Amino acid sequence: MLLSAILLPAGVLMAGEGDAASPTLGIDTLWVLLAAFLVFFMQAGFGMVEAGLTRAKNACNILTKNTLDYCVACLMFFLCGYAIMFGNGNGFIGWTGFGMNSAENPSKVPLLAFWLFQAAFCGAAATIVAGAMAERMKFAAYLTYTVVISAVVYPIVGHWIWSSGGWLAKMGFGDFAGSTVVHSVGGWISFVGTAILGPRIGKYGEDGKPRPMPGHSIPLASLGVFLLWFGWFGFNPGSTLAIGDGAAISLIAVNTNLAACAGAISAMLVVWKFYGKPDLSMTMNGCLAGLVAITAPCAFVSPAASIVIGLIAGCIVVFGVALLDKIKVDDPVGAVPVHGMNGVFGTLAVGIWGQKSLGLARDGLLHGGGLAQLGVQALGNISVCLFAMALMAVVFLAIKGTFGLRVSREEELRGLDIGEHGMEAYAGFQIFTTQ
Amino acid sequence: MLLSAILLPAGVLMAGEGDAASPTLGIDTLWVLLAAFLVFFMQAGFGMVEAGLTRAKNACNILTKNTLDYCVACLMFFLCGYAIMFGNGNGFIGWTGFGMNSAENPSKVPLLAFWLFQAAFCGAAATIVAGAMAERMKFAAYLTYTVVISAVVYPIVGHWIWSSGGWLAKMGFGDFAGSTVVHSVGGWISFVGTAILGPRIGKYGEDGKPRPMPGHSIPLASLGVFLLWFGWFGFNPGSTLAIGDGAAISLIAVNTNLAACAGAISAMLVVWKFYGKPDLSMTMNGCLAGLVAITAPCAFVSPAASIVIGLIAGCIVVFGVALLDKIKVDDPVGAVPVHGMNGVFGTLAVGIWGQKSLGLARDGLLHGGGLAQLGVQALGNISVCLFAMALMAVVFLAIKGTFGLRVSREEELRGLDIGEHGMEAYAGFQIFTTQ
Amino acid sequence: MLLSAILLPAGVLMAGEGDAASPTLGIDTLWVLLAAFLVFFMQAGFGMVEAGLTRAKNACNILTKNTLDYCVACLMFFLCGYAIMFGNGNGFIGWTGFGMNSAENPSKVPLLAFWLFQAAFCGAAATIVAGAMAERMKFAAYLTYTVVISAVVYPIVGHWIWSSGGWLAKMGFGDFAGSTVVHSVGGWISFVGTAILGPRIGKYGEDGKPRPMPGHSIPLASLGVFLLWFGWFGFNPGSTLAIGDGAAISLIAVNTNLAACAGAISAMLVVWKFYGKPDLSMTMNGCLAGLVAITAPCAFVSPAASIVIGLIAGCIVVFGVALLDKIKVDDPVGAVPVHGMNGVFGTLAVGIWGQKSLGLARDGLLHGGGLAQLGVQALGNISVCLFAMALMAVVFLAIKGTFGLRVSREEELRGLDIGEHGMEAYAGFQIFTTQ
Repeated sequence: MLLSAILLPAGVLMAGEGDAASPTLGIDTLWVLLAAFLVFFMQAGFGMVEAGLTRAKNACNILTKNTLDYCVACLMFFLCGYAIMFGNGNGFIGWTGFGMNSAENPSKVPLLAFWLFQAAFCGAAATIVAGAMAERMKFAAYLTYTVVISAVVYPIVGHWIWSSGGWLAKMGFGDFAGSTVVHSVGGWISFVGTAILGPRIGKYGEDGKPRPMPGHSIPLASLGVFLLWFGWFGFNPGSTLAIGDGAAISLIAVNTNLAACAGAISAMLVVWKFYGKPDLSMTMNGCLAGLVAITAPCAFVSPAASIVIGLIAGCIVVFGVALLDKIKVDDPVGAVPVHGMNGVFGTLAVGIWGQKSLGLARDGLLHGGGLAQLGVQALGNISVCLFAMALMAVVFLAIKGTFGLRVSREEELRGLDIGEHGMEAYAGFQIFTTQ
Repeated sequence: MLLSAILLPAGVLMAGEGDAASPTLGIDTLWVLLAAFLVFFMQAGFGMVEAGLTRAKNACNILTKNTLDYCVACLMFFLCGYAIMFGNGNGFIGWTGFGMNSAENPSKVPLLAFWLFQAAFCGAAATIVAGAMAERMKFAAYLTYTVVISAVVYPIVGHWIWSSGGWLAKMGFGDFAGSTVVHSVGGWISFVGTAILGPRIGKYGEDGKPRPMPGHSIPLASLGVFLLWFGWFGFNPGSTLAIGDGAAISLIAVNTNLAACAGAISAMLVVWKFYGKPDLSMTMNGCLAGLVAITAPCAFVSPAASIVIGLIAGCIVVFGVALLDKIKVDDPVGAVPVHGMNGVFGTLAVGIWGQKSLGLARDGLLHGGGLAQLGVQALGNISVCLFAMALMAVVFLAIKGTFGLRVSREEELRGLDIGEHGMEAYAGFQIFTTQ
Repeated sequence: MLLSAILLPAGVLMAGEGDAASPTLGIDTLWVLLAAFLVFFMQAGFGMVEAGLTRAKNACNILTKNTLDYCVACLMFFLCGYAIMFGNGNGFIGWTGFGMNSAENPSKVPLLAFWLFQAAFCGAAATIVAGAMAERMKFAAYLTYTVVISAVVYPIVGHWIWSSGGWLAKMGFGDFAGSTVVHSVGGWISFVGTAILGPRIGKYGEDGKPRPMPGHSIPLASLGVFLLWFGWFGFNPGSTLAIGDGAAISLIAVNTNLAACAGAISAMLVVWKFYGKPDLSMTMNGCLAGLVAITAPCAFVSPAASIVIGLIAGCIVVFGVALLDKIKVDDPVGAVPVHGMNGVFGTLAVGIWGQKSLGLARDGLLHGGGLAQLGVQALGNISVCLFAMALMAVVFLAIKGTFGLRVSREEELRGLDIGEHGMEAYAGFQIFTTQ
């Protein structure tokens, strides 16, 4: 297939540009591409957050996964993911345009610009999972499941919601930039994955109490949060796929920003009140929680609603982390509270604070629309999460039953950098890896 | 107020977009938003510079402050800062548009786009101070003063200079992108703050000589400088708030870049000549000094003048650091020489190298305009610095007299990460914190 | 000269904006400037990769060089580089527009926007060399050669290929964004430089076998790769210098992205197969190799061809690293395999997969064009590499014969940070520097 594509006439490459007559086409393309670059750049943010919040002996491992998540996702999305997500088919799945041959283009910008933006989203969904399952998973197991997520699971869910023929799209399900499509999917796959994988050695003491396993570089994690936040300005506003008069993207950018600020502040205050100190890790997770929660409703709500959504998201993440520890699901970077729980909350927020005048199918609960939109949001989110969790549970269990999910006890104690990659992250530094 | 805003009709959100008929509106909005994203991203740069140039035991503390500076500034600027800065009122202060209800929009882009760009500037002003007062300030004291700066001090100064009704604006004071509004304000508040706070334990020996307290991660600081420089391409060129034919933003971008280059080179050469080695910390501060100094004049001067301004800025920072040590004001990251001294120099440079043909009120000294513009620049800068220093001196002294500015001696020696936040930045690494 | 420029009438600054009537001028200028900002930002990426892959005791040194590479390049390119590269002259060299006085503007965007984009490229070429010669070169020697590269060597090569009067340009040599102009030049100068400089102490044992000298911070290097990749979205798509209907920049962006993904994956698989583990350093270099290789052909080939080019690039880098070790050329960061070897490969790829319908002078080998284009590519690349290597060999040998290329044995063992800069990168950390 590759060879035939190499020899394709150039005309095929330019599919989707027939409407070049529109004077705003160039500028919309520029916007979508810039947004795609920003979403790509989030991958650096994920890498720094995940590496910074785990231990030094596993830093190369998590960074290798983070790099490959994006690389694998792009190739898979080129070969089949896009076809499943945006191809013609039925309400459940698309099946035209494999290898991007005669692929559908639902946008007004050139097919390849749209593809790049969507591929970067696919990479984000895949990389969320790597963080939750960090510090104990086999590299080969990782490679296997990440192919499945980016080639099959993410594109199917995306088809339901973002393809005009998708069954949830037809119901008026509102997920502007992916609280469900990207974050809930990533977060709840993380939950099932880390539950099957089991906690890291030593995470829960004999008394059942969680023991702290602090990340090895909070500065890297802090940098990562800013990188993610910066990239989110492509993720959310870029999802307009057009500039128009700029009003919509301005609202979306401001909502995104305010929710992040509010999330950080509320998480800091809550953790200060309940745990005694304003912990930075939790403040950072609060910021990310606000960003995740505003991702679905960013286009449909007011700035003041965004502040409220962010404040709530920051609370959710603090209590979510505590809840996971209570049920002994060991999620080193907080992927489940940040992406899973707040992905759900953000999706529901559309049904609460959303406004029909801003483009939503129906007014939300607080704008007099009753429970109709909220019901669709709940149905969609539950369906997606159950589907993604069920499918991936099968994959994780299949890997576990064949070549194994988890590294040996010795390797886990020594660190995956040496075991899986034959290298260390900080040569020359005196580091204690005995923990 | 929040609740009412949540329930506001969407039309209110879209205030300021009445002139959507203009064909360039979308594109100008895109430019202002992208510039705002870049200015936001400077926050990552400030964080890495401040953390990198201080000690490992205080890294979480400075990064928490850096994160909250921006978060608090955005919420404050939403609730009241914008109203004070751009609201109708008198030459001293604005007082309409609190909570962004019926807020004024002096720009041609949508209100919210303009707001985001301005809010990011407010965050930058706040974060400068945190660096100078690093490694010994109480977290609660920090939170208190940062609210005051972003809610009151910065907006008032901004009103004087960037609101059309401001008294300095009416005099033709030239500060294109904020050498005074952002950097002098941040830098001179830093000066008064750190003078009141006192030096870090051990900074000055019994002989009165300064002792080196080197930063714990020069690579992070170097990264931070590049992040700041990158963000400055939004800060300065973005202040056009419009693209036009692109000539003005091209000139501004090139001037910004050349001043940074010249500042780095001159600081390196000066420190090499006077201290024996080409020190990287000073080279980096020279780069930032050039950026600060060109911020006011970037639109009003030629590229060659920008090189000269950068060369002088690099010298100023080297001698400024030495001067501070002589008067025993302990500014760990060089915020006073970089932002304060070069903020002043850059403001004066407008009156020296500025050109009326480039949009300044009068020609500068070297272009035959005599001392008129230079006089206005000096008056404006002195007024702003005195105002900001006096107001914040009251705040700092009030905090000092009540719940206290400074952590205990034990906590300072042990590090603020443990004391204030209950965590450490580099778990697992062998680090000497006894210094 | 500076003084006269300071006093120049502003009109001169605005040269090149005569055609402001074009409605797309502003938007094209915005695109070129944004791309320039991204290319500038690659400097942060180079710094993090180079610092991360070398030892902690030399981190300040490499970061100082990386900062100055860009600063020196910009000033040199302002004073004379641009005049040599784009000035009127003959097929070999330009000689009008020194100090940017009455400089030529081959683009449609304002002269200064075009200048900034080109200056950032010049900085990239210079910084490649610093990485290969890291950990043992005198700082003064470095400063000398980097002036020569950015003021003379790079601009001359650029004139041949990117000035309309250049002898290679006239032959239809295809190097869309600089696999030859930037990367081959940087990479092959690196080769001759590091060969003359000799390997680091201890790199090759008495048995002639290479000994590992692992980099001190793989997380920084990983961050650097993402920064470079992000910047490459300005480097390649920005080289269009115009947006048009967005089709071309979309294709270029996607090709750039796919080649990077494919390069990372193939390098990982090859190193896994031949060396037993999926090494992250090599995966990262594979990613960069793909980016370098697609730089010349990015506008002329299909996405599927880009995948193939990336896959091959990833293989080249793995075997290239082994080859260098066999001939005992010690290149700490892999600059020669990444930029030199893949710069050559990418240049040749234009003649193999290039398509006339995408704007190339002739169809490539696989599109029925025979060997004509491939021959031009080979001729151009060989000419450029030989010229750059010969000229710089003279410079390196002249430095070696006068004030010396290399630091003393004691300084090299102790680290260049202390010796050359009087500072350390990680104050307070326990680090082993005895290696």
